[in-house]
Amino acid sequence: MATLTVPSVVPSPVEDAEQLRKAFEALDSEISGDFQRALLLWTMEPAERDAYLAYESTKRFTSNQWVLVEIATTRSTHELILVRKAYHDRYKKCIEEDVAHHTHGDIRKLLLPLVSTLRYEGDEVNTTLAKAEAKILREKVTDNACNDDDFIRILCTRSKAQLNATLNHYNNSYGNSISKDLKADGSKDEYLKLLRAVITCLTTPEKYFEKVLRQAINKVGTDEWALTRVITTRAEVDLCRIKEEYHRRNSVPLATAIAKDTSGDYEKLLIELTGHGNA
Amino acid sequence: MATLTVPSVVPSPVEDAEQLRKAFEALDSEISGDFQRALLLWTMEPAERDAYLAYESTKRFTSNQWVLVEIATTRSTHELILVRKAYHDRYKKCIEEDVAHHTHGDIRKLLLPLVSTLRYEGDEVNTTLAKAEAKILREKVTDNACNDDDFIRILCTRSKAQLNATLNHYNNSYGNSISKDLKADGSKDEYLKLLRAVITCLTTPEKYFEKVLRQAINKVGTDEWALTRVITTRAEVDLCRIKEEYHRRNSVPLATAIAKDTSGDYEKLLIELTGHGNA
Repeated sequence: MATLTVPSVVPSPVEDAEQLRKAFEALDSEISGDFQRALLLWTMEPAERDAYLAYESTKRFTSNQWVLVEIATTRSTHELILVRKAYHDRYKKCIEEDVAHHTHGDIRKLLLPLVSTLRYEGDEVNTTLAKAEAKILREKVTDNACNDDDFIRILCTRSKAQLNATLNHYNNSYGNSISKDLKADGSKDEYLKLLRAVITCLTTPEKYFEKVLRQAINKVGTDEWALTRVITTRAEVDLCRIKEEYHRRNSVPLATAIAKDTSGDYEKLLIELTGHGNA
Repeated sequence: MATLTVPSVVPSPVEDAEQLRKAFEALDSEISGDFQRALLLWTMEPAERDAYLAYESTKRFTSNQWVLVEIATTRSTHELILVRKAYHDRYKKCIEEDVAHHTHGDIRKLLLPLVSTLRYEGDEVNTTLAKAEAKILREKVTDNACNDDDFIRILCTRSKAQLNATLNHYNNSYGNSISKDLKADGSKDEYLKLLRAVITCLTTPEKYFEKVLRQAINKVGTDEWALTRVITTRAEVDLCRIKEEYHRRNSVPLATAIAKDTSGDYEKLLIELTGHGNA
């Protein structure tokens, strides 16, 4: 599912090191802006990178609740443990402290347990529970009470397999996906938008990331931070599936769209990470 | 701080294994009751044992919120990560699911973040923050609003060093420890009792465990579950300090009190774990 492949003739570590040494000699004065940020994110350890992105997301000028949702929902439990350790080491506090400081009201009520819980990752499903909780979700949606404790608890604590069964049961029983029902409630509501992002990230992450990329590329001026973040964090994970989803949804390959909107070394790096050979 | 020491003549692994083999041949038919439970708890891996105790604490007939508080507050962040992994492996779900199911209202509001957060463990203290948060705690105590989001957030997310500074500042500024102020609010209130336990566990765990032991031993009939739990979980951690605290508070050595209230193999095991030589 990753977009990166090993070249047919593998350079020796010595050759690699020498090339890197030469490259780094000129680095500081040569790189800047979007390319610098992309290179920085790409070369960090994944857990360090996520800790850094999460930290940025709780700071005033780089505040971004979507990034917190993304990290909390699309990383494995083991990866999240490493991210939280990296957060302790780098920032001398725990992620919950910053998330609580940065948010308030319903959004805090959703994000705090979301970043805290270490979900069970097995694929066992309890069908009775799925039916019962689909009913609870439906009741809360109908009552406009999606900020209710039980609604949040189900989304934030159940395993992905269990939650998926619950949402399938919701869909089958009530004729709509829960995301559609949440939309009908007022699409401008920031909290409902975040809820939908949580649900999409937990069930079909490639669709969530495709949408972030689409909006980043279609925006007047391109949202380089979002574009860089998704490409660098997903290249070694599921960027192949995201590319397929992007092509399907936009009738144009992701690499073509990126090439049209970016330039220079920044473009080259993104295209390389996107795996241009098999776009 | 642990109560166990290595004997001066160390038996060879072969001798140990042979003794264990002989002992186990007759084990199932010989042991039962309190001795069996103590032996079971003592021989489990610490993370497995905590996962088991936490699981028991969320079940109807062995329900015990104090055990959840104890585990969430007196284990290190690394230990808590292992406990949560052990919980996933043994019970095929995460601890948050069972805690949420088992509790409701204010107690759920307190326990869920308490068992979820992985606290930062450094000893840095931000004095400005400590003063500001002491003020918040005081306001909530004065307004009878100790179930408030911010009150719970401070207790559940701040590092032990930071929280300690905050509580010291509270004590200095308002003339009372916060635990005393919480007491004045109605000592029968289950939620306030749990809050005080959280605070004692986070700041002076040996006092918390001394009290559990004192109440277990003084109770008509002895509370063997509590006695066994504290001795087996703290023997290799801080039972020495708990013993000192017990002696100071009750004017009798812990081993003497245990010997008076228990008998047979159960007594022998507890006395051994208590480190009778240096009681």
